[in-house]
Amino acid sequence: MDSAVHNENGRLPMSTSAQIGVTGLAVMGRNLARNFARNGYAVAVHNRTASRTRALLEEFGDEGEFIGAETAAEFVAALERPRRLVIMVKAGDPTDAVIEEFAPLLEDGDVIIDGGNAHFADTRRRERELRERGIHFVGTGISGGEEGALHGPSIMPGGSAESYASLGPLLEKISAKAADGAPCVTHVGPDGAGHFVKMVHNGIEYADMQLIAEAYQLLRDVAGYSPAQIAEVFRTWNTGRLDSYLIEITAEVLSHVDAATGKPFVDVVADQAEQKGTGRWTVQLALELGVPVSGIAEAVFARSLSGHTALREASRGLAGPTAQPLSGAEADAFADQVEQALYASKIVSYTQGFHEIAAGSAEYDWNIDLGAVAAIWRGGCIIRAAFLDRIRAAYDARPDLPSLLADETFATEIAEAQHDWRAVLGAAISQGVPTPGFAAALAYYDSLRADRLPAALTQGQRDYFGAHTYRRTDREGSFHTLWSEDRSEVQA
Amino acid sequence: MDSAVHNENGRLPMSTSAQIGVTGLAVMGRNLARNFARNGYAVAVHNRTASRTRALLEEFGDEGEFIGAETAAEFVAALERPRRLVIMVKAGDPTDAVIEEFAPLLEDGDVIIDGGNAHFADTRRRERELRERGIHFVGTGISGGEEGALHGPSIMPGGSAESYASLGPLLEKISAKAADGAPCVTHVGPDGAGHFVKMVHNGIEYADMQLIAEAYQLLRDVAGYSPAQIAEVFRTWNTGRLDSYLIEITAEVLSHVDAATGKPFVDVVADQAEQKGTGRWTVQLALELGVPVSGIAEAVFARSLSGHTALREASRGLAGPTAQPLSGAEADAFADQVEQALYASKIVSYTQGFHEIAAGSAEYDWNIDLGAVAAIWRGGCIIRAAFLDRIRAAYDARPDLPSLLADETFATEIAEAQHDWRAVLGAAISQGVPTPGFAAALAYYDSLRADRLPAALTQGQRDYFGAHTYRRTDREGSFHTLWSEDRSEVQA
Repeated sequence: MDSAVHNENGRLPMSTSAQIGVTGLAVMGRNLARNFARNGYAVAVHNRTASRTRALLEEFGDEGEFIGAETAAEFVAALERPRRLVIMVKAGDPTDAVIEEFAPLLEDGDVIIDGGNAHFADTRRRERELRERGIHFVGTGISGGEEGALHGPSIMPGGSAESYASLGPLLEKISAKAADGAPCVTHVGPDGAGHFVKMVHNGIEYADMQLIAEAYQLLRDVAGYSPAQIAEVFRTWNTGRLDSYLIEITAEVLSHVDAATGKPFVDVVADQAEQKGTGRWTVQLALELGVPVSGIAEAVFARSLSGHTALREASRGLAGPTAQPLSGAEADAFADQVEQALYASKIVSYTQGFHEIAAGSAEYDWNIDLGAVAAIWRGGCIIRAAFLDRIRAAYDARPDLPSLLADETFATEIAEAQHDWRAVLGAAISQGVPTPGFAAALAYYDSLRADRLPAALTQGQRDYFGAHTYRRTDREGSFHTLWSEDRSEVQA
Repeated sequence: MDSAVHNENGRLPMSTSAQIGVTGLAVMGRNLARNFARNGYAVAVHNRTASRTRALLEEFGDEGEFIGAETAAEFVAALERPRRLVIMVKAGDPTDAVIEEFAPLLEDGDVIIDGGNAHFADTRRRERELRERGIHFVGTGISGGEEGALHGPSIMPGGSAESYASLGPLLEKISAKAADGAPCVTHVGPDGAGHFVKMVHNGIEYADMQLIAEAYQLLRDVAGYSPAQIAEVFRTWNTGRLDSYLIEITAEVLSHVDAATGKPFVDVVADQAEQKGTGRWTVQLALELGVPVSGIAEAVFARSLSGHTALREASRGLAGPTAQPLSGAEADAFADQVEQALYASKIVSYTQGFHEIAAGSAEYDWNIDLGAVAAIWRGGCIIRAAFLDRIRAAYDARPDLPSLLADETFATEIAEAQHDWRAVLGAAISQGVPTPGFAAALAYYDSLRADRLPAALTQGQRDYFGAHTYRRTDREGSFHTLWSEDRSEVQA
């Protein structure tokens, strides 16, 4: 058969007319290709098994100009120079395999875009290797799932500034747009910066979801609300400062009734959360960078704990209180307090996440604009929220802001929320409702604002058992106490 | 000069008479060599710079039979076969360099022991590579610091069973002895098992120290005690179920008065805790293995947070309560409650740590005897404690115990403690004293005992935005709801 696939309109495509190419046509790649085509770009499409390429052309060929290619050589030949070639395959070895398939066919200045969920360390390696071969490699975070890929995702490209000059206009066209019309894409920074920021985005998403889960459980157990009532609470919250995609869909999930049983959907779903790995990476990297991301860590742990069914089964009889639900006005007042607790905890999650981005940026010399990152998360991605506009404003006003908590607006809001935050946590603890995320967030807040931390005792112990030395509050230098001798102090 | 160094007694040593060799004579290596010699073994000693070797012989040569070697060849020649050669150098590249120096000089069946703080993944690699060359490689955790190395450490060797047959008797001789006289060493398991268990030991140590730090802060801020008074409280605790090295030295550190200022020592130490990496590794690995170790994670984060001085400075003005100290009988009653909270949280830390060891053992097929691990931590190491005898008893009674919390004794104790545990946390939260470790421990406990977790909502959200599917409580299979269509359910 003819190796160049005709598109549905029957036109035999020009061989070098595509402005962009997409290889890997599973749902994300297919939808991204359609998004490019719907925005007026000629898109070369390719897949390891050609049937998927043909299926795309058959089903969606009328959405725009597609150029189907059955071989790698055809695919590359179909791209205008400098070539822009998006890889949408599984992260890890498959990505390396596809790069090795295409790189030898490319020329100086061509651009490979990896739109998968690669670990940023792999992206850094690939960028370095390809740079030496004259090829731009742009590791790109893409958030928004299938729907986002099709209708406009939030896009986080790394790589060289030169590659962004060539690629940026296309990405800006296909990206989500924020409420103010700004495209949800920016050149995040060199090499792995894009995938790094996407990783932290997912970590924050884990934390957001865990905090919502805890708010739900508190409304259920302490306020005594039904899932349908809680859905209404979330709907109301979604009209205020918590306005966000995740709050919106929480209401949808909670109001859904299972057709088979007539029970609330949330009550028939197995309570074992799964995960794919980016949340875990976020915490592992934060540990590497020395950034406390306790809220994200608790979210990752909560998912893994929920899946340890044998452990949970063995622990079922452990002693503890049973929550005594409130009612009427007391319940409603408690629900208002939960909103405060959720909002305050959310500020802490984002504080931790942005701290990690700042630390990564410093470590890898990426010079990331934190305000710009907040701006491109306003649309398209899972954590999109009105809230992000305010984070952008905070960093725009003070790009060197050492922490979101140092922003006056957030500090004021958390000051107003903290009484209720403490009350909610107090209720959770005395009534036995697990709230690891709320608790970690408050402990972080109280730790940061503390005049003195007991870390001084920790250092004293370390010096005692390991001669690790300590510093003093009143003069420079490192010191050691001769604990097993006369306990005099020596300069170390 | 004569290349074989005479020992202080002036005897020219037999060239192949040493039962064990130690290369790397910084303080840990030197003390370990002395420990072997003091126990009657002839010890070959070697260091990259020979001056250290000579210094050891000059200072400590009369403690036993040392054979100084200036070159690698001499060192190897001094060892009886199968050779047992302990490497005590910095973890990482220096370890590989020393292995590469000695391995070519060794013969089939010889044993290299790495007593440094290697990452167990490196140990697995080295063991595999050396096994292919006919050499046993025994990655060995050694805990107890300088003093332990000299007087008897807790020793955690991995590697082959065959190597332990040759090495075990020597290690048993030099190790710490538990109160019942049992040597604090066991063959932990194959390849990296020893270093893995040492890593988790350190992670648990971080958690223990953090919990003690929080207890101290609560006694200071809420009970209103002085450091000297708190030292007395810890001394009392040390006579009960918390009896342990760390509680003992906490009392020593807290009762110490700074000579320069006359102030309590703990008040002149900078409150920025440092860390070396094994705590971080423990958490990173737990994330890899899907084991929730929230208490250890909070301990690691607390240390890094304490060191972020700019962040803390910027957060100093954040709103929150100031603790109102109790007094008299109320303060004393609160201190008793803190003991309960500390003990309950400690049970959770060890539950998490042993869960990680069990998970690592399963993942790498190590078949680790958890009771034996508890037993060898009873003496010599930093976390040595009466408590460990009871963990050993729990696993000895039920080797397949799914969790320490499933042990009846611990479950009963925590049941008795949990009321006070909640009260202490409630006070901490309402009074603004940061207690990340206590809070994480209680959240873990309440999560495990929960009938239903809000993970069901998390799965519903994941299905909504990413079609990640969910399982149901009432039948097998994976399901997906067509959220953007008619919300019917399909089998996935």
